[in-house]
Amino acid sequence: MRVAIFGGTGDLGRGLAVNFAAAGHEIVVGSRSQERADQAAATLRGDLPEGAFVPMENVPAAETGEIAVVSIPWEGVESTIPPMADALADKVVISVVNAIEFGKGGAVAVQGLPGGSMAQRIQELAPEARVVMAYNNLPAARLQRRERIDADVLVCGRGKAARDRVIELSEAIPGVRALDCGTLANACIIEGSTAIIINLNRRYGGEAAIRIEGLHNA
Amino acid sequence: MRVAIFGGTGDLGRGLAVNFAAAGHEIVVGSRSQERADQAAATLRGDLPEGAFVPMENVPAAETGEIAVVSIPWEGVESTIPPMADALADKVVISVVNAIEFGKGGAVAVQGLPGGSMAQRIQELAPEARVVMAYNNLPAARLQRRERIDADVLVCGRGKAARDRVIELSEAIPGVRALDCGTLANACIIEGSTAIIINLNRRYGGEAAIRIEGLHNA
Repeated sequence: MRVAIFGGTGDLGRGLAVNFAAAGHEIVVGSRSQERADQAAATLRGDLPEGAFVPMENVPAAETGEIAVVSIPWEGVESTIPPMADALADKVVISVVNAIEFGKGGAVAVQGLPGGSMAQRIQELAPEARVVMAYNNLPAARLQRRERIDADVLVCGRGKAARDRVIELSEAIPGVRALDCGTLANACIIEGSTAIIINLNRRYGGEAAIRIEGLHNA
Repeated sequence: MRVAIFGGTGDLGRGLAVNFAAAGHEIVVGSRSQERADQAAATLRGDLPEGAFVPMENVPAAETGEIAVVSIPWEGVESTIPPMADALADKVVISVVNAIEFGKGGAVAVQGLPGGSMAQRIQELAPEARVVMAYNNLPAARLQRRERIDADVLVCGRGKAARDRVIELSEAIPGVRALDCGTLANACIIEGSTAIIINLNRRYGGEAAIRIEGLHNA
């Protein structure tokens, strides 16, 4: 599959890009300029020399990718998505974006986001896309090291076909199990749970991940 | 410990009451009337004949309990808590309340709650209490059967001493590990994650629980 990644050198984006590439997917590395895309692809090639990383500007990257991963900082969503909205029409667009603030008490999920969550906001900004939220909670450093991660990918999104596509793509990440959590309505909960993981990592040490126990047919 | 439970015959409250009683705690079963409290205590005695279940009206129950568990439906919080607020002053008050709605897409966490979450709302309504959110995500039926549950209790609340008290109380529930998730700021995320668990139970079958993997010192 040809997977376009936007924000492919962020912690999580980089970990996903390397795992998808290692599984044989072609990674289109999108960025605001060709120069930055070239740099990002070079970084990823440094992580995985045998990976296929093709640098492009955002709009052609969105046009070229069969599936897209949005892994940019949440503050960049409002400016980055609208120019790509047409190119993303009808495509499965995976949001791994979390809106998290850091204060005295640690990481806190930002409340009152427009749209209700970052995934829903991306859906608003690219209304013809099929936005699916996934991978938000995975430990980025462990992904980058390509460790086996015995965790669950909580997937919610617009339409079962789109979610199934992401669940299938998740097979590229060793160890993880992807679970269909339904529509985007609860995306804010899954996005926000990353704040809890961050705080637990700080308090107890480690690079934690969520696992759901007790499901019979998953 | 003398544990006052409000809503002790709700699914989760009943499961908690039985586990706490089985561990040797005395359970003060609070209700709006003595008659309803008597009925609730009789129900719990049916579940665990050797348990100590003492029925009382809400205010004396709140006064008597060394620690309180609020396990009432979320719609009842606004009317139930204020009359008990004085009696709950300085006490550790555990909220297991989740605000969840059911629609076409399944269970959805209610957005825009006053206070930001049910736990924070209870803190507003009982400002002198030390509110701790815990147990929200545990599978009620498995608790009622007193099965061993290899899951994590995500604990957040007002003050480390109060959270530690709840973490200690959690030893009454076989199998679970209680994790300190910090202040009440992220309570809405943990409360809301129950909606995701409900939907996963429906889709995959089972009585799921959350487990956090990858922490070194927990």
